[in-house]
Amino acid sequence: MKNNIFKGIIAYPITPFEENEKVDIALFKKLLERLVASGAHGIAPLGSTGVLPYLTDEEKEAITEATISQVKGRVPVLVGVSNLTTERTIYHAKFAEKAGADAVMIIPMSYWKLTDNEIVQHYDAVAKQISIPIMAYNNPATGGVDMSPTLLKRLLEIPNVTMIKESTGDVQRMHYLRKELGEDVAFYNGSNPLALAAFAAGATGWCTAAPNLIPELNIGLYNAIQKNDLAEAQKIFYKQMHLLQFIVNKGLPRAIKAGLSILGVDGGYLRNPLKPMSESEVAELKTIISTI
Amino acid sequence: MKNNIFKGIIAYPITPFEENEKVDIALFKKLLERLVASGAHGIAPLGSTGVLPYLTDEEKEAITEATISQVKGRVPVLVGVSNLTTERTIYHAKFAEKAGADAVMIIPMSYWKLTDNEIVQHYDAVAKQISIPIMAYNNPATGGVDMSPTLLKRLLEIPNVTMIKESTGDVQRMHYLRKELGEDVAFYNGSNPLALAAFAAGATGWCTAAPNLIPELNIGLYNAIQKNDLAEAQKIFYKQMHLLQFIVNKGLPRAIKAGLSILGVDGGYLRNPLKPMSESEVAELKTIISTI
Amino acid sequence: MKNNIFKGIIAYPITPFEENEKVDIALFKKLLERLVASGAHGIAPLGSTGVLPYLTDEEKEAITEATISQVKGRVPVLVGVSNLTTERTIYHAKFAEKAGADAVMIIPMSYWKLTDNEIVQHYDAVAKQISIPIMAYNNPATGGVDMSPTLLKRLLEIPNVTMIKESTGDVQRMHYLRKELGEDVAFYNGSNPLALAAFAAGATGWCTAAPNLIPELNIGLYNAIQKNDLAEAQKIFYKQMHLLQFIVNKGLPRAIKAGLSILGVDGGYLRNPLKPMSESEVAELKTIISTI
Amino acid sequence: MKNNIFKGIIAYPITPFEENEKVDIALFKKLLERLVASGAHGIAPLGSTGVLPYLTDEEKEAITEATISQVKGRVPVLVGVSNLTTERTIYHAKFAEKAGADAVMIIPMSYWKLTDNEIVQHYDAVAKQISIPIMAYNNPATGGVDMSPTLLKRLLEIPNVTMIKESTGDVQRMHYLRKELGEDVAFYNGSNPLALAAFAAGATGWCTAAPNLIPELNIGLYNAIQKNDLAEAQKIFYKQMHLLQFIVNKGLPRAIKAGLSILGVDGGYLRNPLKPMSESEVAELKTIISTI
Repeated sequence: MKNNIFKGIIAYPITPFEENEKVDIALFKKLLERLVASGAHGIAPLGSTGVLPYLTDEEKEAITEATISQVKGRVPVLVGVSNLTTERTIYHAKFAEKAGADAVMIIPMSYWKLTDNEIVQHYDAVAKQISIPIMAYNNPATGGVDMSPTLLKRLLEIPNVTMIKESTGDVQRMHYLRKELGEDVAFYNGSNPLALAAFAAGATGWCTAAPNLIPELNIGLYNAIQKNDLAEAQKIFYKQMHLLQFIVNKGLPRAIKAGLSILGVDGGYLRNPLKPMSESEVAELKTIISTI
Repeated sequence: MKNNIFKGIIAYPITPFEENEKVDIALFKKLLERLVASGAHGIAPLGSTGVLPYLTDEEKEAITEATISQVKGRVPVLVGVSNLTTERTIYHAKFAEKAGADAVMIIPMSYWKLTDNEIVQHYDAVAKQISIPIMAYNNPATGGVDMSPTLLKRLLEIPNVTMIKESTGDVQRMHYLRKELGEDVAFYNGSNPLALAAFAAGATGWCTAAPNLIPELNIGLYNAIQKNDLAEAQKIFYKQMHLLQFIVNKGLPRAIKAGLSILGVDGGYLRNPLKPMSESEVAELKTIISTI
Repeated sequence: MKNNIFKGIIAYPITPFEENEKVDIALFKKLLERLVASGAHGIAPLGSTGVLPYLTDEEKEAITEATISQVKGRVPVLVGVSNLTTERTIYHAKFAEKAGADAVMIIPMSYWKLTDNEIVQHYDAVAKQISIPIMAYNNPATGGVDMSPTLLKRLLEIPNVTMIKESTGDVQRMHYLRKELGEDVAFYNGSNPLALAAFAAGATGWCTAAPNLIPELNIGLYNAIQKNDLAEAQKIFYKQMHLLQFIVNKGLPRAIKAGLSILGVDGGYLRNPLKPMSESEVAELKTIISTI
Repeated sequence: MKNNIFKGIIAYPITPFEENEKVDIALFKKLLERLVASGAHGIAPLGSTGVLPYLTDEEKEAITEATISQVKGRVPVLVGVSNLTTERTIYHAKFAEKAGADAVMIIPMSYWKLTDNEIVQHYDAVAKQISIPIMAYNNPATGGVDMSPTLLKRLLEIPNVTMIKESTGDVQRMHYLRKELGEDVAFYNGSNPLALAAFAAGATGWCTAAPNLIPELNIGLYNAIQKNDLAEAQKIFYKQMHLLQFIVNKGLPRAIKAGLSILGVDGGYLRNPLKPMSESEVAELKTIISTI
């Protein structure tokens, strides 16, 4: 099997802002420490949850450095470096490697829908410039392009593309990946409501922002799967399902920030145009959290 | 819990025709006997696999009677009685009850998209005329209407609507049903490629034509789930996944008939406009079956 | 150009029922006479509007005969003869020809999604048995299968398949048909809200149930197009647009029946499971009709 | 009517790059001059065609200034200023106004799907900072969010949001806009293959990159509509339809660059990850152009 350092629960921190919309690095580090302390098996800054595309180059670099220095090697770190242009993707991938990241995650962001060849050349151009592993991330809802299993297979021929994160929300995709790519390729679930189905299908890990709110349930699900106890996994999954659906439906940055506030944790401000959830949405989230 | 007589593998026979397109009842009984002998936990004639909508009233009645007389109570029988008009649905539901069926399955067939109220009144009108249980079947791909979880909840308020068969191919629907309807409502998976995910989600049974070709693997999957052995279930599922996808993609009546022929079993003829699979498709199926 | 007898406004009558759900032939003839008298350029019984799939063989025959005898050759008659099985489609096509229909309309009704080859063989089998022209009808929303322009091109190679009715609601399809099939193939618009766009794209006719309610506006639109007066066509189209959208959204049989009632015309009863529109829907329709 | 300075053919220039991926301002000005000289009624730099999201702030400013200085008021200029964050959108809108733009175009770019309230506040925040008109642009395919007619109506309540560009590719949307918003709101078609249908529906203008290749046909279509000559408009539209479909399907920057090259005009290089069309695609475009 290709050597994968990531497994289990890979936690996605939010990027908190000050009221004036500046990134709040001090608060980011506190939120990061909570995730590590809660038992997450990996940390992934600058994902969709971390509002990567809304940040400047300098802000991305500050977040990357803050993560490495705070995590201090206790768990592996996966840094998001996706960018519309190949040049900027390479730039941030090299920065992450130099800063000490264990791997980078790349989604082929797309304004103009990329062809398969363009996507392969994009990954290849980045891969040649770094020596740490790359997780190829498929998420048509945010990235705008849906990479077929055939294309993912081509990407895996690039030596340091070793992991796939699948977020289409279709469990049959995962079945296909497992069957077509073989057991030596690790695939990760990025669709929260599919957590149980994905582990049942053989996913190596779960990329999720949920540990910001309910780390015990997320880790508990993984542990039940590890013990081959489906009945227990099912029970733990159904406990958290409503929360998982809610945070996805409302948008992870908004929902995680609101959830932290309900738990009495400061999550900072959002950056415009993203706004806090409405009062009725917050009330709904309060009910969901209190009944868990 | 509402009393459900169906669980595990509910097998769907095809309806075989003679070369002149007449229903071949003698051959139907032979195919039925194979299914019962193979260990299926229930038998469901006149489903999509049995080309229900292509049959005349008389043919449906003959199939119903042939099933009851051949199965002889060894396993419960679920008869499909769906029809575009309410009047004909009632007629066939009453016929099935009188003939000795244990339950009937009804999909709200739809040329003109029915409103929720029309669907509720349709089920209610049928339910009032029979005393055996009804399985409400949701399959937008063949029925033309997608019943929301909210509508399914309304249908379950009708006393003898006790079971739901879900075939949208979206495992999140099943999660929602389980969470919303509670554990006292049995839901059944009608999407073959979701067999593993559905059982992981808590499905009571799997409605499938696959036992015509691979009964041991279908039953093996259910047994592994019953033993709470996810690792084993996953292994057995991946063995049969290609076949499950193939028979769904090619259309169950065509694919099952071709598969029977490959296994040396006579499956009769199809009724026009349905035609046998092409030679290359048959060759592909042969490869899939031989590598299981 | 292939010889086409249909052009302009081809009007679709509803099939009225008595309270006990029996087809009301006397009332049908009255409604038919209104359509002919209003100036429609053609009459098409047993379409979707006429709830073809909800009728028995005998009822279809009675409707066919009633139409021919009532229209008496004043305008051409196009009879719907679609059926799930090839055998029944042939039966009704032959019946229509013998009864005196000028052409038949066939949609490849589909419970099991038909392959392109199956569809071609289906049309070919029917075409060989009759000598009147066939209109191939594409309507994925009701028929369950979407015939590609490539497939339609194959169908047009069958000698008496001479017309295409396109109801996908995508005007680009019509552009493609016109460009690919050439000006010698007549295409007809079956999507009411696209009436203006379709005529602008070069449609030969408009297949519509709207003349049951607003024949002057339907015919007026066609006349403006014939005079090459786009400004006038646009004005007339926007007058009727809301009504066209409403009757499609609510389902033509329900909406036409309600509209007739508003106009003081008896439209009979519907057949279950179809139910009359709700009071609020009827009130909405009243407002739309009164502001035209 | 709200005062609209844009009508007819609004031409979208590409942004050409040097081989090292630097923006080629000198070449950009030459391409701009061609568009103005060809008779376009307006010029719109920094659109999707101009690969806006792939450019740095400095590059966007240089393109804006180059456009104003080259066009010299001969036709009105509409500058694209869309950005993921509200802060950067305001920045570029103010820059465009100061540089002399006649209006700005804003699409609510969306990584995280924005709520209706977030979109309204986003436009409102920008509108308050400038006094030139804003064209709200709806294009779910590239922007990731589909603004409903109801939302567009809300946006039009903001004083300087006066124009709507609609690119869903659904002509019924335009009908709805015209009917709901009234004739005093100008709507523009941004979907090339809908050019005829949109003008037939009453569009004020057509936002298009096609004048880089076939300005006479684009302007000819508009002129025929102005003369109320639908027959002529239809003829001119069908001449260019294949080209319009081709450039949209292949991606405008790639296709326009290739088309310029076929016409013997230097279009510069693309920025990675965008790559030139394949040889077979170029050959296909050559055939389309030569048969016009």
